[in-house]
Amino acid sequence: MTDDIKATAKGSPGVNETRIRVRYAETDQMGVVYHSNHFIWFEVGRVELLRQLGFSYKEMESADDCFIAVVDARCRYKAPVRYDDMVVVRTYLKQVREKLIHFGYELVSEDGGRLLAEGETTHIVADGQMKPRKLPEKYLRVFRAAAQV
Amino acid sequence: MTDDIKATAKGSPGVNETRIRVRYAETDQMGVVYHSNHFIWFEVGRVELLRQLGFSYKEMESADDCFIAVVDARCRYKAPVRYDDMVVVRTYLKQVREKLIHFGYELVSEDGGRLLAEGETTHIVADGQMKPRKLPEKYLRVFRAAAQV
Amino acid sequence: MTDDIKATAKGSPGVNETRIRVRYAETDQMGVVYHSNHFIWFEVGRVELLRQLGFSYKEMESADDCFIAVVDARCRYKAPVRYDDMVVVRTYLKQVREKLIHFGYELVSEDGGRLLAEGETTHIVADGQMKPRKLPEKYLRVFRAAAQV
Amino acid sequence: MTDDIKATAKGSPGVNETRIRVRYAETDQMGVVYHSNHFIWFEVGRVELLRQLGFSYKEMESADDCFIAVVDARCRYKAPVRYDDMVVVRTYLKQVREKLIHFGYELVSEDGGRLLAEGETTHIVADGQMKPRKLPEKYLRVFRAAAQV
Repeated sequence: MTDDIKATAKGSPGVNETRIRVRYAETDQMGVVYHSNHFIWFEVGRVELLRQLGFSYKEMESADDCFIAVVDARCRYKAPVRYDDMVVVRTYLKQVREKLIHFGYELVSEDGGRLLAEGETTHIVADGQMKPRKLPEKYLRVFRAAAQV
Repeated sequence: MTDDIKATAKGSPGVNETRIRVRYAETDQMGVVYHSNHFIWFEVGRVELLRQLGFSYKEMESADDCFIAVVDARCRYKAPVRYDDMVVVRTYLKQVREKLIHFGYELVSEDGGRLLAEGETTHIVADGQMKPRKLPEKYLRVFRAAAQV
Repeated sequence: MTDDIKATAKGSPGVNETRIRVRYAETDQMGVVYHSNHFIWFEVGRVELLRQLGFSYKEMESADDCFIAVVDARCRYKAPVRYDDMVVVRTYLKQVREKLIHFGYELVSEDGGRLLAEGETTHIVADGQMKPRKLPEKYLRVFRAAAQV
Repeated sequence: MTDDIKATAKGSPGVNETRIRVRYAETDQMGVVYHSNHFIWFEVGRVELLRQLGFSYKEMESADDCFIAVVDARCRYKAPVRYDDMVVVRTYLKQVREKLIHFGYELVSEDGGRLLAEGETTHIVADGQMKPRKLPEKYLRVFRAAAQV
Protein backbone atom coordinates (compact mmCIF):
# COMPACT_ATOMS: atom_id res chain seq x y z
CA MET A 1 0.00 0.00 0.00
CA THR A 2 0.99 3.58 -0.39
CA ASP A 3 2.17 5.06 2.84
CA ASP A 4 -0.78 7.31 3.46
CA ILE A 5 -3.27 4.48 3.21
CA LYS A 6 -1.18 2.42 5.57
CA ALA A 7 -0.98 5.35 7.96
CA THR A 8 -4.71 5.87 7.99
CA ALA A 9 -5.39 2.25 8.54
CA LYS A 10 -2.84 1.68 11.23
CA GLY A 11 -3.75 4.87 13.01
CA SER A 12 -7.43 4.11 13.17
CA PRO A 13 -9.09 1.59 15.47
CA GLY A 14 -12.18 1.81 13.29
CA VAL A 15 -10.55 0.34 10.19
CA ASN A 16 -9.54 -3.27 9.92
CA GLU A 17 -6.99 -4.50 7.42
CA THR A 18 -6.99 -8.19 6.62
CA ARG A 19 -4.77 -9.86 4.06
CA ILE A 20 -6.24 -12.53 1.82
CA ARG A 21 -4.30 -14.75 -0.57
CA VAL A 22 -6.31 -15.36 -3.76
CA ARG A 23 -7.20 -19.04 -4.17
CA TYR A 24 -7.20 -20.91 -7.46
CA ALA A 25 -10.84 -21.82 -6.83
CA GLU A 26 -11.69 -18.11 -6.82
CA THR A 27 -10.53 -17.52 -10.40
CA ASP A 28 -12.64 -18.06 -13.50
CA GLN A 29 -11.81 -18.80 -17.11
CA MET A 30 -11.24 -15.11 -17.81
CA GLY A 31 -8.10 -15.59 -15.69
CA VAL A 32 -9.22 -13.26 -12.91
CA VAL A 33 -11.15 -13.57 -9.66
CA TYR A 34 -14.84 -14.21 -10.26
CA HIS A 35 -16.78 -11.18 -9.08
CA SER A 36 -18.98 -12.80 -6.44
CA ASN A 37 -15.92 -13.68 -4.36
CA HIS A 38 -15.37 -10.03 -3.48
CA PHE A 39 -18.50 -10.22 -1.32
CA ILE A 40 -17.08 -13.24 0.53
CA TRP A 41 -13.91 -11.24 1.20
CA PHE A 42 -16.04 -8.34 2.47
CA GLU A 43 -17.58 -10.77 4.96
CA VAL A 44 -14.12 -11.89 6.08
CA GLY A 45 -13.30 -8.22 6.61
CA ARG A 46 -16.45 -7.62 8.67
CA VAL A 47 -15.66 -10.50 11.01
CA GLU A 48 -12.09 -9.32 11.49
CA LEU A 49 -13.21 -5.73 12.13
CA LEU A 50 -15.53 -7.06 14.84
CA ARG A 51 -12.68 -9.07 16.32
CA GLN A 52 -10.49 -5.94 16.29
CA LEU A 53 -13.26 -4.14 18.20
CA GLY A 54 -13.24 -6.89 20.82
CA PHE A 55 -16.12 -9.05 19.60
CA SER A 56 -16.54 -12.48 18.06
CA TYR A 57 -19.28 -12.63 15.47
CA LYS A 58 -19.60 -16.33 16.28
CA GLU A 59 -20.50 -15.48 19.88
CA MET A 60 -22.67 -12.61 18.77
CA GLU A 61 -24.81 -15.24 17.05
CA SER A 62 -24.57 -18.06 19.58
CA ALA A 63 -24.46 -16.18 22.90
CA ASP A 64 -26.44 -13.04 22.09
CA ASP A 65 -28.87 -14.43 19.46
CA CYS A 66 -27.90 -11.49 17.30
CA PHE A 67 -27.42 -11.87 13.55
CA ILE A 68 -26.60 -9.21 11.00
CA ALA A 69 -28.39 -10.16 7.81
CA VAL A 70 -27.39 -8.50 4.54
CA VAL A 71 -30.14 -6.42 2.94
CA ASP A 72 -28.03 -4.55 0.40
CA ALA A 73 -24.61 -5.33 -1.08
CA ARG A 74 -22.69 -3.47 -3.72
CA CYS A 75 -19.23 -3.66 -5.25
CA ARG A 76 -17.48 -1.48 -7.82
CA TYR A 77 -14.65 -3.32 -9.56
CA LYS A 78 -11.65 -1.13 -10.36
CA ALA A 79 -8.99 -3.62 -11.46
CA PRO A 80 -8.80 -7.35 -12.05
CA VAL A 81 -7.55 -9.45 -9.14
CA ARG A 82 -5.42 -12.44 -10.04
CA TYR A 83 -4.54 -15.84 -8.68
CA ASP A 84 -2.04 -15.86 -5.81
CA ASP A 85 -2.25 -12.08 -5.38
CA MET A 86 -2.24 -10.87 -1.80
CA VAL A 87 -5.23 -8.61 -1.34
CA VAL A 88 -5.81 -6.29 1.60
CA VAL A 89 -9.44 -5.90 2.68
CA ARG A 90 -9.98 -2.59 4.47
CA THR A 91 -13.28 -2.67 6.38
CA TYR A 92 -14.90 0.13 8.34
CA LEU A 93 -18.24 1.07 9.83
CA LYS A 94 -20.00 3.77 7.83
CA GLN A 95 -23.14 4.13 9.89
CA VAL A 96 -24.57 2.41 12.95
CA ARG A 97 -28.16 2.51 14.11
CA GLU A 98 -30.04 0.35 16.58
CA LYS A 99 -31.41 -1.91 13.88
CA LEU A 100 -29.21 -1.18 10.89
CA ILE A 101 -25.47 -1.37 10.28
CA HIS A 102 -23.66 -0.03 7.26
CA PHE A 103 -20.13 -1.25 6.40
CA GLY A 104 -17.71 0.09 3.81
CA TYR A 105 -14.85 -1.78 2.12
CA GLU A 106 -11.80 -1.20 -0.01
CA LEU A 107 -9.79 -3.95 -1.62
CA VAL A 108 -6.24 -2.87 -2.30
CA SER A 109 -3.22 -4.73 -3.63
CA GLU A 110 -0.66 -5.49 -0.96
CA ASP A 111 2.18 -4.23 -3.11
CA GLY A 112 1.54 -0.60 -3.82
CA GLY A 113 -1.96 -0.18 -2.50
CA ARG A 114 -3.66 -0.01 -5.87
CA LEU A 115 -7.44 0.15 -5.42
CA LEU A 116 -8.92 -3.10 -6.77
CA ALA A 117 -12.51 -2.67 -5.66
CA GLU A 118 -14.68 -0.79 -3.24
CA GLY A 119 -18.06 -1.59 -1.85
CA GLU A 120 -20.58 -1.40 0.92
CA THR A 121 -23.11 -3.63 2.61
CA THR A 122 -26.14 -2.81 4.71
CA HIS A 123 -27.34 -5.21 7.40
CA ILE A 124 -30.38 -5.43 9.59
CA VAL A 125 -30.03 -6.77 13.09
CA ALA A 126 -32.11 -9.92 13.56
CA ASP A 127 -32.55 -12.81 15.96
CA GLY A 128 -32.16 -16.47 15.08
CA GLN A 129 -35.69 -16.55 13.69
CA MET A 130 -34.80 -13.68 11.38
CA LYS A 131 -37.00 -11.23 13.25
CA PRO A 132 -35.66 -7.67 13.48
CA ARG A 133 -34.29 -6.75 16.88
CA LYS A 134 -32.13 -4.02 18.40
CA LEU A 135 -28.39 -4.35 18.54
CA PRO A 136 -27.41 -5.08 22.16
CA GLU A 137 -26.01 -2.05 23.95
CA LYS A 138 -22.48 -3.43 24.31
CA TYR A 139 -22.11 -3.67 20.53
CA LEU A 140 -23.96 -0.45 19.80
CA ARG A 141 -21.66 1.64 21.97
CA VAL A 142 -18.44 0.28 20.48
CA PHE A 143 -19.72 0.23 16.88
CA ARG A 144 -20.85 3.84 17.14
CA ALA A 145 -17.50 4.92 18.51
CA ALA A 146 -15.75 3.07 15.67
CA ALA A 147 -18.01 4.62 13.06
CA GLN A 148 -17.14 8.10 14.24
CA VAL A 149 -13.41 7.67 13.80
CA MET B 1 -45.44 -16.02 -9.83
CA THR B 2 -48.39 -13.73 -9.83
CA ASP B 3 -50.07 -13.69 -13.18
CA ASP B 4 -49.11 -10.18 -14.14
CA ILE B 5 -45.40 -10.85 -13.64
CA LYS B 6 -45.71 -13.99 -15.70
CA ALA B 7 -47.56 -12.06 -18.35
CA THR B 8 -44.91 -9.39 -18.58
CA ALA B 9 -42.14 -11.92 -18.76
CA LYS B 10 -43.75 -14.22 -21.24
CA GLY B 11 -44.95 -11.41 -23.40
CA SER B 12 -41.56 -9.79 -23.66
CA PRO B 13 -38.64 -11.07 -25.74
CA GLY B 14 -36.37 -8.79 -23.70
CA VAL B 15 -36.92 -10.56 -20.39
CA ASN B 16 -35.55 -13.99 -19.65
CA GLU B 17 -36.94 -16.21 -16.91
CA THR B 18 -34.73 -19.03 -15.70
CA ARG B 19 -35.59 -21.40 -12.87
CA ILE B 20 -32.87 -22.35 -10.40
CA ARG B 21 -33.18 -24.99 -7.68
CA VAL B 22 -31.32 -23.89 -4.53
CA ARG B 23 -28.41 -26.20 -3.73
CA TYR B 24 -27.41 -27.29 -0.23
CA ALA B 25 -23.94 -25.87 -0.91
CA GLU B 26 -25.50 -22.45 -1.38
CA THR B 27 -26.92 -22.26 2.14
CA ASP B 28 -25.05 -21.05 5.21
CA GLN B 29 -25.41 -21.71 8.91
CA MET B 30 -28.12 -19.06 9.20
CA GLY B 31 -30.25 -21.59 7.27
CA VAL B 32 -30.64 -19.41 4.20
CA VAL B 33 -28.80 -18.87 0.92
CA TYR B 34 -25.50 -17.06 1.46
CA HIS B 35 -25.76 -13.64 -0.15
CA SER B 36 -22.92 -13.90 -2.67
CA ASN B 37 -24.74 -16.68 -4.51
CA HIS B 38 -27.34 -14.25 -5.79
CA PHE B 39 -24.66 -12.76 -8.04
CA ILE B 40 -23.89 -16.19 -9.46
CA TRP B 41 -27.59 -16.63 -10.25
CA PHE B 42 -27.62 -13.20 -11.92
CA GLU B 43 -24.83 -14.48 -14.16
CA VAL B 44 -26.86 -17.58 -15.02
CA GLY B 45 -29.71 -15.25 -15.93
CA ARG B 46 -27.48 -13.10 -18.19
CA VAL B 47 -26.26 -16.12 -20.11
CA GLU B 48 -29.80 -17.40 -20.61
CA LEU B 49 -31.06 -13.98 -21.69
CA LEU B 50 -28.30 -13.92 -24.33
CA ARG B 51 -29.30 -17.43 -25.44
CA GLN B 52 -32.92 -16.27 -25.71
CA LEU B 53 -31.73 -13.41 -27.92
CA GLY B 54 -29.97 -15.88 -30.20
CA PHE B 55 -26.43 -15.70 -28.86
CA SER B 56 -24.09 -17.97 -26.95
CA TYR B 57 -21.91 -16.13 -24.45
CA LYS B 58 -19.40 -18.94 -24.85
CA GLU B 59 -19.03 -18.15 -28.55
CA MET B 60 -19.11 -14.43 -27.86
CA GLU B 61 -15.87 -15.01 -25.94
CA SER B 62 -14.25 -17.67 -28.10
CA ALA B 63 -15.34 -16.66 -31.62
CA ASP B 64 -15.71 -12.87 -31.26
CA ASP B 65 -13.05 -12.21 -28.56
CA CYS B 66 -15.69 -10.22 -26.74
CA PHE B 67 -15.99 -10.36 -22.95
CA ILE B 68 -18.36 -8.48 -20.71
CA ALA B 69 -16.49 -7.76 -17.49
CA VAL B 70 -18.42 -6.69 -14.40
CA VAL B 71 -17.55 -3.20 -13.16
CA ASP B 72 -20.47 -2.71 -10.78
CA ALA B 73 -22.77 -5.22 -9.08
CA ARG B 74 -25.53 -4.62 -6.59
CA CYS B 75 -28.22 -6.70 -4.92
CA ARG B 76 -31.02 -5.74 -2.57
CA TYR B 77 -32.24 -8.69 -0.52
CA LYS B 78 -35.98 -8.69 0.14
CA ALA B 79 -36.63 -12.13 1.64
CA PRO B 80 -34.54 -15.12 2.66
CA VAL B 81 -34.13 -17.87 0.09
CA ARG B 82 -34.04 -21.40 1.41
CA TYR B 83 -32.64 -24.77 0.48
CA ASP B 84 -34.50 -26.64 -2.27
CA ASP B 85 -36.61 -23.59 -3.15
CA MET B 86 -37.20 -23.06 -6.83
CA VAL B 87 -36.18 -19.52 -7.69
CA VAL B 88 -37.02 -17.69 -10.89
CA VAL B 89 -34.34 -15.30 -12.16
CA ARG B 90 -35.83 -12.57 -14.33
CA THR B 91 -33.09 -10.85 -16.35
CA TYR B 92 -33.42 -7.90 -18.68
CA LEU B 93 -31.28 -5.30 -20.40
CA LYS B 94 -31.58 -1.88 -18.80
CA GLN B 95 -29.22 0.06 -21.02
CA VAL B 96 -26.91 -0.79 -23.90
CA ARG B 97 -24.08 1.35 -25.20
CA GLU B 98 -21.19 0.49 -27.49
CA LYS B 99 -18.85 -0.15 -24.58
CA LEU B 100 -21.15 -0.55 -21.61
CA ILE B 101 -24.04 -2.90 -20.86
CA HIS B 102 -26.40 -2.60 -17.93
CA PHE B 103 -28.50 -5.59 -16.81
CA GLY B 104 -31.33 -5.70 -14.29
CA TYR B 105 -32.55 -8.70 -12.28
CA GLU B 106 -35.41 -9.85 -10.13
CA LEU B 107 -35.40 -13.05 -8.14
CA VAL B 108 -38.92 -14.27 -7.43
CA SER B 109 -40.23 -17.42 -5.79
CA GLU B 110 -41.72 -19.88 -8.24
CA ASP B 111 -44.81 -20.38 -6.11
CA GLY B 112 -46.52 -17.03 -5.88
CA GLY B 113 -43.95 -14.72 -7.36
CA ARG B 114 -42.84 -13.17 -4.10
CA LEU B 115 -39.91 -10.82 -4.74
CA LEU B 116 -36.82 -12.32 -3.09
CA ALA B 117 -34.17 -9.92 -4.36
CA GLU B 118 -33.51 -7.41 -7.09
CA GLY B 119 -30.27 -6.16 -8.49
CA GLU B 120 -28.27 -4.81 -11.37
CA THR B 121 -24.85 -5.22 -12.89
CA THR B 122 -22.85 -2.99 -15.19
CA HIS B 123 -20.34 -4.47 -17.62
CA ILE B 124 -17.68 -3.06 -19.89
CA VAL B 125 -17.02 -4.72 -23.19
CA ALA B 126 -13.43 -6.01 -23.37
CA ASP B 127 -11.23 -8.28 -25.44
CA GLY B 128 -9.36 -11.31 -24.10
CA GLN B 129 -6.57 -9.06 -22.85
CA MET B 130 -9.11 -7.06 -20.88
CA LYS B 131 -8.76 -4.02 -23.13
CA PRO B 132 -11.97 -2.06 -23.70
CA ARG B 133 -13.50 -2.56 -27.12
CA LYS B 134 -16.79 -1.90 -28.87
CA LEU B 135 -19.56 -4.44 -28.83
CA PRO B 136 -19.75 -6.03 -32.31
CA GLU B 137 -22.63 -4.70 -34.38
CA LYS B 138 -24.60 -7.96 -34.43
CA TYR B 139 -24.90 -7.95 -30.64
CA LEU B 140 -25.41 -4.20 -30.36
CA ARG B 141 -28.40 -4.20 -32.67
CA VAL B 142 -30.20 -7.04 -30.90
CA PHE B 143 -29.31 -5.89 -27.38
CA ARG B 144 -30.59 -2.39 -28.10
CA ALA B 145 -33.84 -3.74 -29.43
CA ALA B 146 -34.23 -5.92 -26.34
CA ALA B 147 -33.48 -3.01 -24.01
CA GLN B 148 -36.24 -0.93 -25.57
CA VAL B 149 -38.94 -3.46 -24.96
CA MET C 1 -25.42 -40.05 -24.19
CA THR C 2 -24.72 -43.28 -25.92
CA ASP C 3 -27.84 -45.38 -26.25
CA ASP C 4 -26.86 -48.06 -23.81
CA ILE C 5 -26.22 -45.61 -21.00
CA LYS C 6 -29.51 -43.93 -21.68
CA ALA C 7 -31.25 -47.28 -21.72
CA THR C 8 -29.80 -48.29 -18.39
CA ALA C 9 -30.74 -45.03 -16.80
CA LYS C 10 -34.20 -44.77 -18.17
CA GLY C 11 -35.02 -48.36 -17.46
CA SER C 12 -33.98 -48.17 -13.84
CA PRO C 13 -35.91 -46.48 -11.05
CA GLY C 14 -32.75 -46.63 -8.94
CA VAL C 15 -30.73 -44.30 -11.15
CA ASN C 16 -31.42 -40.59 -11.36
CA GLU C 17 -30.27 -38.47 -14.27
CA THR C 18 -30.12 -34.74 -13.71
CA ARG C 19 -28.86 -32.21 -16.23
CA ILE C 20 -26.68 -29.35 -15.03
CA ARG C 21 -25.55 -26.40 -17.12
CA VAL C 22 -21.98 -25.39 -16.19
CA ARG C 23 -21.85 -21.90 -14.70
CA TYR C 24 -19.12 -19.36 -15.39
CA ALA C 25 -18.49 -19.17 -11.64
CA GLU C 26 -17.60 -22.87 -11.68
CA THR C 27 -14.67 -22.47 -14.08
CA ASP C 28 -11.14 -21.57 -13.06
CA GLN C 29 -8.24 -19.93 -14.87
CA MET C 30 -7.24 -23.24 -16.45
CA GLY C 31 -10.43 -22.78 -18.50
CA VAL C 32 -12.19 -25.81 -17.06
CA VAL C 33 -14.50 -26.54 -14.14
CA TYR C 34 -12.68 -26.34 -10.82
CA HIS C 35 -12.58 -29.83 -9.32
CA SER C 36 -14.43 -29.18 -6.05
CA ASN C 37 -17.60 -28.35 -7.97
CA HIS C 38 -18.05 -31.97 -8.98
CA PHE C 39 -18.90 -32.74 -5.36
CA ILE C 40 -21.57 -30.04 -5.37
CA TRP C 41 -23.07 -31.63 -8.49
CA PHE C 42 -22.99 -35.03 -6.78
CA GLU C 43 -25.07 -33.48 -3.99
CA VAL C 44 -27.55 -32.14 -6.54
CA GLY C 45 -27.77 -35.67 -7.92
CA ARG C 46 -28.40 -37.17 -4.47
CA VAL C 47 -31.26 -34.80 -3.79
CA GLU C 48 -32.86 -35.52 -7.16
CA LEU C 49 -32.48 -39.27 -6.72
CA LEU C 50 -34.30 -38.96 -3.39
CA ARG C 51 -37.02 -36.92 -5.07
CA GLN C 52 -37.34 -39.60 -7.76
CA LEU C 53 -37.77 -42.16 -4.98
CA GLY C 54 -40.61 -40.10 -3.52
CA PHE C 55 -38.76 -38.20 -0.81
CA SER C 56 -37.72 -34.62 -0.18
CA TYR C 57 -34.35 -34.29 1.50
CA LYS C 58 -35.54 -30.96 2.88
CA GLU C 59 -38.37 -32.72 4.73
CA MET C 60 -36.10 -35.57 5.72
CA GLU C 61 -34.14 -32.98 7.68
CA SER C 62 -36.98 -30.78 8.93
CA ALA C 63 -39.77 -33.31 9.51
CA ASP C 64 -37.80 -36.46 10.38
CA ASP C 65 -34.70 -34.90 12.01
CA CYS C 66 -32.65 -37.10 9.76
CA PHE C 67 -29.44 -35.84 8.15
CA ILE C 68 -27.01 -37.71 5.95
CA ALA C 69 -23.56 -36.35 6.73
CA VAL C 70 -20.69 -37.07 4.35
CA VAL C 71 -17.88 -39.13 5.87
CA ASP C 72 -16.05 -40.04 2.67
CA ALA C 73 -16.08 -38.46 -0.79
CA ARG C 74 -14.08 -39.34 -3.85
CA CYS C 75 -14.01 -38.29 -7.48
CA ARG C 76 -11.98 -39.55 -10.42
CA TYR C 77 -11.73 -36.96 -13.19
CA LYS C 78 -11.76 -38.44 -16.69
CA ALA C 79 -12.14 -35.40 -18.95
CA PRO C 80 -12.24 -31.63 -18.47
CA VAL C 81 -15.68 -30.07 -18.18
CA ARG C 82 -16.11 -26.66 -19.76
CA TYR C 83 -18.20 -23.55 -19.36
CA ASP C 84 -21.78 -23.79 -20.69
CA ASP C 85 -21.50 -27.55 -21.20
CA MET C 86 -24.59 -29.51 -20.27
CA VAL C 87 -23.56 -32.27 -17.89
CA VAL C 88 -25.67 -35.25 -16.90
CA VAL C 89 -25.26 -36.43 -13.31
CA ARG C 90 -26.17 -40.08 -12.94
CA THR C 91 -26.71 -40.94 -9.27
CA TYR C 92 -27.47 -44.32 -7.75
CA LEU C 93 -27.45 -46.08 -4.40
CA LYS C 94 -24.55 -48.48 -4.03
CA GLN C 95 -25.23 -49.77 -0.55
CA VAL C 96 -27.76 -49.00 2.16
CA ARG C 97 -27.47 -49.91 5.82
CA GLU C 98 -29.37 -48.68 8.84
CA LYS C 99 -26.73 -46.10 9.69
CA LEU C 100 -24.69 -45.80 6.52
CA ILE C 101 -25.56 -44.92 2.93
CA HIS C 102 -23.26 -45.24 -0.04
CA PHE C 103 -23.97 -43.36 -3.29
CA GLY C 104 -22.28 -43.71 -6.67
CA TYR C 105 -22.09 -41.10 -9.45
CA GLU C 106 -21.19 -40.71 -13.08
CA LEU C 107 -20.90 -37.40 -14.85
CA VAL C 108 -21.42 -37.75 -18.58
CA SER C 109 -21.61 -35.18 -21.35
CA GLU C 110 -25.12 -34.66 -22.66
CA ASP C 111 -23.99 -34.92 -26.26
CA GLY C 112 -22.55 -38.38 -26.72
CA GLY C 113 -22.41 -39.62 -23.16
CA ARG C 114 -18.65 -39.28 -22.77
CA LEU C 115 -17.66 -40.12 -19.19
CA LEU C 116 -16.38 -36.92 -17.55
CA ALA C 117 -15.97 -38.13 -13.99
CA GLU C 118 -17.11 -40.81 -11.62
CA GLY C 119 -17.24 -40.88 -7.87
CA GLU C 120 -18.81 -42.05 -4.68
CA THR C 121 -19.76 -40.68 -1.30
CA THR C 122 -20.45 -42.38 2.00
CA HIS C 123 -22.83 -40.85 4.52
CA ILE C 124 -23.74 -41.58 8.10
CA VAL C 125 -27.28 -41.02 9.23
CA ALA C 126 -27.43 -38.42 12.01
CA ASP C 127 -29.91 -36.25 13.87
CA GLY C 128 -29.79 -32.46 14.02
CA GLN C 129 -27.23 -32.61 16.82
CA MET C 130 -25.00 -34.73 14.60
CA LYS C 131 -25.53 -37.84 16.71
CA PRO C 132 -25.68 -41.11 14.75
CA ARG C 133 -29.15 -42.56 14.40
CA LYS C 134 -30.93 -45.19 12.34
CA LEU C 135 -32.50 -44.33 9.04
CA PRO C 136 -36.31 -44.30 9.51
CA GLU C 137 -37.98 -47.40 8.15
CA LYS C 138 -39.85 -45.63 5.35
CA TYR C 139 -36.57 -44.48 3.79
CA LEU C 140 -34.71 -47.70 4.52
CA ARG C 141 -37.22 -49.85 2.67
CA VAL C 142 -37.25 -47.72 -0.46
CA PHE C 143 -33.50 -47.08 -0.49
CA ARG C 144 -32.76 -50.79 -0.17
CA ALA C 145 -35.08 -51.61 -3.03
CA ALA C 146 -33.42 -48.93 -5.17
CA ALA C 147 -29.94 -50.20 -4.31
CA GLN C 148 -30.81 -53.69 -5.48
CA VAL C 149 -31.88 -52.62 -8.93
CA MET D 1 -1.99 -29.19 17.81
CA THR D 2 -0.59 -31.84 20.02
CA ASP D 3 3.13 -31.45 20.43
CA ASP D 4 4.15 -34.51 18.47
CA ILE D 5 2.23 -33.42 15.38
CA LYS D 6 3.76 -30.00 15.66
CA ALA D 7 7.21 -31.53 16.03
CA THR D 8 6.82 -33.69 12.96
CA ALA D 9 5.59 -30.82 10.92
CA LYS D 10 8.11 -28.28 12.05
CA GLY D 11 10.98 -30.71 11.80
CA SER D 12 10.16 -31.67 8.25
CA PRO D 13 10.77 -29.54 5.16
CA GLY D 14 8.45 -31.84 3.25
CA VAL D 15 5.34 -30.96 5.24
CA ASN D 16 3.63 -27.62 4.99
CA GLU D 17 1.30 -26.31 7.65
CA THR D 18 -1.06 -23.52 6.67
CA ARG D 19 -3.68 -21.99 8.92
CA ILE D 20 -7.10 -21.22 7.48
CA ARG D 21 -9.89 -19.34 9.25
CA VAL D 22 -13.30 -20.83 8.36
CA ARG D 23 -15.46 -18.33 6.47
CA TYR D 24 -19.19 -17.92 6.98
CA ALA D 25 -19.65 -18.59 3.26
CA GLU D 26 -18.11 -22.03 3.76
CA THR D 27 -20.78 -23.22 6.20
CA ASP D 28 -24.10 -24.78 5.23
CA GLN D 29 -27.45 -25.02 6.94
CA MET D 30 -26.31 -28.05 8.95
CA GLY D 31 -24.14 -25.51 10.81
CA VAL D 32 -20.84 -26.99 9.66
CA VAL D 33 -18.45 -26.50 6.76
CA TYR D 34 -19.89 -27.85 3.51
CA HIS D 35 -17.79 -30.82 2.45
CA SER D 36 -16.58 -29.58 -0.94
CA ASN D 37 -14.65 -26.77 0.74
CA HIS D 38 -12.13 -29.23 2.15
CA PHE D 39 -10.85 -29.74 -1.40
CA ILE D 40 -10.36 -26.01 -1.81
CA TRP D 41 -8.34 -25.97 1.41
CA PHE D 42 -6.27 -28.90 0.11
CA GLU D 43 -5.45 -26.74 -2.91
CA VAL D 44 -4.39 -23.87 -0.64
CA GLY D 45 -2.13 -26.36 1.14
CA ARG D 46 -0.56 -27.58 -2.13
CA VAL D 47 0.29 -24.06 -3.22
CA GLU D 48 1.84 -23.24 0.16
CA LEU D 49 3.85 -26.48 0.17
CA LEU D 50 5.23 -25.54 -3.23
CA ARG D 51 6.09 -22.07 -1.92
CA GLN D 52 7.86 -23.67 1.06
CA LEU D 53 9.87 -25.75 -1.41
CA GLY D 54 10.93 -22.59 -3.22
CA PHE D 55 8.41 -22.53 -6.06
CA SER D 56 5.44 -20.42 -7.07
CA TYR D 57 2.64 -22.41 -8.65
CA LYS D 58 1.62 -19.23 -10.45
CA GLU D 59 5.02 -19.11 -12.19
CA MET D 60 4.99 -22.84 -12.74
CA GLU D 61 1.92 -22.22 -14.92
CA SER D 62 2.89 -18.93 -16.52
CA ALA D 63 6.67 -19.31 -16.93
CA ASP D 64 7.05 -23.06 -17.33
CA ASP D 65 3.72 -23.92 -19.02
CA CYS D 66 3.33 -26.63 -16.44
CA PHE D 67 -0.05 -27.38 -14.86
CA ILE D 68 -0.93 -30.06 -12.36
CA ALA D 69 -4.47 -31.18 -13.16
CA VAL D 70 -6.40 -33.20 -10.59
CA VAL D 71 -7.31 -36.71 -11.74
CA ASP D 72 -8.35 -38.15 -8.38
CA ALA D 73 -9.42 -36.48 -5.15
CA ARG D 74 -10.59 -38.01 -1.92
CA CYS D 75 -11.44 -36.82 1.55
CA ARG D 76 -12.41 -38.69 4.71
CA TYR D 77 -14.29 -36.49 7.15
CA LYS D 78 -13.52 -37.20 10.81
CA ALA D 79 -15.16 -34.33 12.65
CA PRO D 80 -17.34 -31.36 11.75
CA VAL D 81 -15.54 -28.09 11.13
CA ARG D 82 -17.33 -24.97 12.29
CA TYR D 83 -17.53 -21.30 11.43
CA ASP D 84 -14.62 -19.17 12.64
CA ASP D 85 -12.55 -22.24 13.60
CA MET D 86 -8.88 -22.01 12.78
CA VAL D 87 -7.93 -25.07 10.78
CA VAL D 88 -4.40 -26.25 10.07
CA VAL D 89 -3.87 -27.85 6.65
CA ARG D 90 -0.89 -30.22 6.69
CA THR D 91 0.19 -30.99 3.12
CA TYR D 92 2.91 -33.37 1.99
CA LEU D 93 4.09 -35.16 -1.12
CA LYS D 94 3.26 -38.86 -1.08
CA GLN D 95 4.72 -39.87 -4.41
CA VAL D 96 6.37 -38.05 -7.30
CA ARG D 97 6.85 -39.38 -10.80
CA GLU D 98 7.72 -37.61 -14.03
CA LYS D 99 4.09 -37.28 -15.07
CA LEU D 100 2.16 -37.90 -11.87
CA ILE D 101 2.18 -36.25 -8.45
CA HIS D 102 0.43 -37.56 -5.36
CA PHE D 103 -0.29 -35.26 -2.40
CA GLY D 104 -1.55 -36.15 1.07
CA TYR D 105 -3.41 -33.90 3.52
CA GLU D 106 -4.49 -33.70 7.10
CA LEU D 107 -6.81 -31.08 8.48
CA VAL D 108 -6.34 -30.61 12.20
CA SER D 109 -7.86 -28.15 14.65
CA GLU D 110 -5.44 -25.46 15.75
CA ASP D 111 -6.32 -25.92 19.40
CA GLY D 112 -5.39 -29.45 20.31
CA GLY D 113 -4.61 -30.93 16.95
CA ARG D 114 -7.76 -32.99 16.65
CA LEU D 115 -7.91 -34.67 13.24
CA LEU D 116 -10.79 -33.13 11.29
CA ALA D 117 -10.23 -34.73 7.92
CA GLU D 118 -7.62 -36.45 5.84
CA GLY D 119 -7.33 -36.85 2.12
CA GLU D 120 -5.22 -37.20 -0.98
CA THR D 121 -5.16 -35.92 -4.53
CA THR D 122 -3.46 -37.27 -7.64
CA HIS D 123 -2.39 -34.91 -10.41
CA ILE D 124 -1.09 -35.36 -13.91
CA VAL D 125 1.43 -32.91 -15.26
CA ALA D 126 0.07 -31.10 -18.31
CA ASP D 127 0.78 -28.11 -20.51
CA GLY D 128 -1.59 -25.20 -21.11
CA GLN D 129 -3.44 -27.22 -23.75
CA MET D 130 -4.00 -29.97 -21.20
CA LYS D 131 -1.59 -32.35 -22.95
CA PRO D 132 0.41 -34.59 -20.63
CA ARG D 133 4.04 -33.58 -20.26
CA LYS D 134 6.98 -34.33 -17.97
CA LEU D 135 7.57 -32.32 -14.86
CA PRO D 136 10.58 -30.04 -15.49
CA GLU D 137 13.75 -31.30 -13.85
CA LYS D 138 14.03 -28.44 -11.34
CA TYR D 139 10.67 -29.35 -9.80
CA LEU D 140 11.18 -33.10 -10.07
CA ARG D 141 14.41 -33.03 -8.08
CA VAL D 142 13.03 -30.96 -5.22
CA PHE D 143 9.65 -32.74 -5.12
CA ARG D 144 11.32 -36.14 -4.96
CA ALA D 145 13.54 -35.04 -2.14
CA ALA D 146 10.52 -33.68 -0.27
CA ALA D 147 8.56 -36.90 -0.82
CA GLN D 148 11.31 -38.97 0.73
CA VAL D 149 11.38 -37.03 3.96
